[in-house]
Amino acid sequence: MSGTGNAEAGERVMLAHGGGGRAMREIIEREILPRFDNDALRPLSDAASLGYIEGRILMTTDAFVVKPPFFPGGDIGRLAICGTVNDLAVSGSRPVALTLSLIVEEGFPLAELRRVLDGAKAAASEAGVPLAAGDFKVVERGAADGVYASTAGIGAAPRGVEFDARLIRPGDAIILTGTMGDHGVALLSVREGLAFETPVASDVAPLNGMLFPLCDQALCVRCMRDPTRGGVAAALNEMAEAAGVTVVVEESAVPVARAVRWACEMLGLDPFHSANEGKALVFCAPDTADDVLRLLRSHPLGRNAARIGTAVTRREAPVIIRTAAGGERILDVPLGEELPRIC
Amino acid sequence: MSGTGNAEAGERVMLAHGGGGRAMREIIEREILPRFDNDALRPLSDAASLGYIEGRILMTTDAFVVKPPFFPGGDIGRLAICGTVNDLAVSGSRPVALTLSLIVEEGFPLAELRRVLDGAKAAASEAGVPLAAGDFKVVERGAADGVYASTAGIGAAPRGVEFDARLIRPGDAIILTGTMGDHGVALLSVREGLAFETPVASDVAPLNGMLFPLCDQALCVRCMRDPTRGGVAAALNEMAEAAGVTVVVEESAVPVARAVRWACEMLGLDPFHSANEGKALVFCAPDTADDVLRLLRSHPLGRNAARIGTAVTRREAPVIIRTAAGGERILDVPLGEELPRIC
Repeated sequence: MSGTGNAEAGERVMLAHGGGGRAMREIIEREILPRFDNDALRPLSDAASLGYIEGRILMTTDAFVVKPPFFPGGDIGRLAICGTVNDLAVSGSRPVALTLSLIVEEGFPLAELRRVLDGAKAAASEAGVPLAAGDFKVVERGAADGVYASTAGIGAAPRGVEFDARLIRPGDAIILTGTMGDHGVALLSVREGLAFETPVASDVAPLNGMLFPLCDQALCVRCMRDPTRGGVAAALNEMAEAAGVTVVVEESAVPVARAVRWACEMLGLDPFHSANEGKALVFCAPDTADDVLRLLRSHPLGRNAARIGTAVTRREAPVIIRTAAGGERILDVPLGEELPRIC
Repeated sequence: MSGTGNAEAGERVMLAHGGGGRAMREIIEREILPRFDNDALRPLSDAASLGYIEGRILMTTDAFVVKPPFFPGGDIGRLAICGTVNDLAVSGSRPVALTLSLIVEEGFPLAELRRVLDGAKAAASEAGVPLAAGDFKVVERGAADGVYASTAGIGAAPRGVEFDARLIRPGDAIILTGTMGDHGVALLSVREGLAFETPVASDVAPLNGMLFPLCDQALCVRCMRDPTRGGVAAALNEMAEAAGVTVVVEESAVPVARAVRWACEMLGLDPFHSANEGKALVFCAPDTADDVLRLLRSHPLGRNAARIGTAVTRREAPVIIRTAAGGERILDVPLGEELPRIC
């Protein structure tokens, strides 16, 4: 039988697996279809049919080059799916379909490719979103670092729901759906070989189940953002800049896991700059903040949700931290070179 | 001014450009937005709003690792946009929006990144499709080979148009919209350093303008396919297998550029196995074949369109070539390792 054994233990990805011929069909039929089977993907057409979609359509894409591809709490497959699901969820939409493109280095163990696909599959199942299309390319040894992934997704927003940072007004409440900085610290710890009593795991998770109930106009949510690369600092700065307000954050109100806080001190890292992959920032009208918090805390991923600050009339900087000691400091955007390949 | 000079000649992509911080915003604001500006992209939200879309929605994705990234007739940016536009077009849909994710090696010259973006921009303009979202990641020197691209796209198919290879019936006509094998030969020639009197240029082009008029139910088009990786051979085999028919191709009727034919002989390559990036195979009812041909030839990209064969009741193989000499040979699918990184 042609190709028998390609899927056996110890086998590795070959250039032919990405060539568009028989070897590629084998990978698709053995590894992709059984995991992700759904009506849109099954025909393996040039483009997957999603049928007629109601609502305003949103679209997003992300590339993932996370190093290492397997880390405490997740892997590049899970990360890729969650990243795109979360971009759609914080935009006020229900994710409808995802795509996944992999670029794999020749010689990458098939067993590890399967772990990546398993991670993607589990995340897509948790999110309840079908993988409608994919692609698979192989480059020579040394022309990639294991595996890279790109995802795209489309979502449908209910009529009337249009989150926009420009809707933020002075007085609005700022809610963070859980502890800050876990993903960045998990990655950095494993890279630096740090050992903690309680190891820090990435928070990577699909947020659509928790966030979609907030797409209810009565809750007066202005906008949401998932603070990934650049952390809470970058997300708050962007939102404050877009809204023309200043965001004042009460440092003592921001949930940070003890191990993350400790690791950040050791690594000289500001947890506000550390990436998150399963958290959202929610800006809402002050009088609905309690309802938003209650909804978030009723979901397993939101049980540590906290109101961390307030939008005020523009001051000397977009984001100001009020420290536990009562002082104030400006929270700047990281330049971007501290943590390459964090996602 | 912070960061001044990053965009100057001689500058190179740095890890920080992909980090999600200030350096990345500079790249986006200087290089991405001015080129691709449109209503969906401009807000740089987590997900781009495409509004309400009529019709059946189709979605597709592709990864591009073409080597070298610049080749006669195109570049990886043009290729990425056209590949996704064409997948949507052969599926009977009008492309509505595209996404582009780049993975760039640290040290890649900014001038070359600009050429890639220019190529993508020109192709998107030719296709008339907005780039709605993008991402940009940088990996260390040696962790990629210059630049890789992933695109995704969604299209809208008119009600009633559902191309499907399973609709092909014995007697159906098979039309190729132009010369075969140009892209594969262009790539291989530049890699092997072959010099021709007339250099072979890739055919990479967006086909939606030529193909959308065929989405008219009166033309009885059964299905279309763009014969990329694996060439016309792979595409015909897949379609014949899906339909349960045999495809008989008249070799003398298949348009092949003289330089491509000559290069294939030198390289020991079958032009049927050579990739195309600006061609489509169209299966239609025999009595509408002339109308389809006329429509195709009225478009600049279709002036060499030709009827190359006929579907017949299943015979001993899915694809059979009738040679100029009157013999027959089976046209098989390439295994896939002959031409890595052709797209």
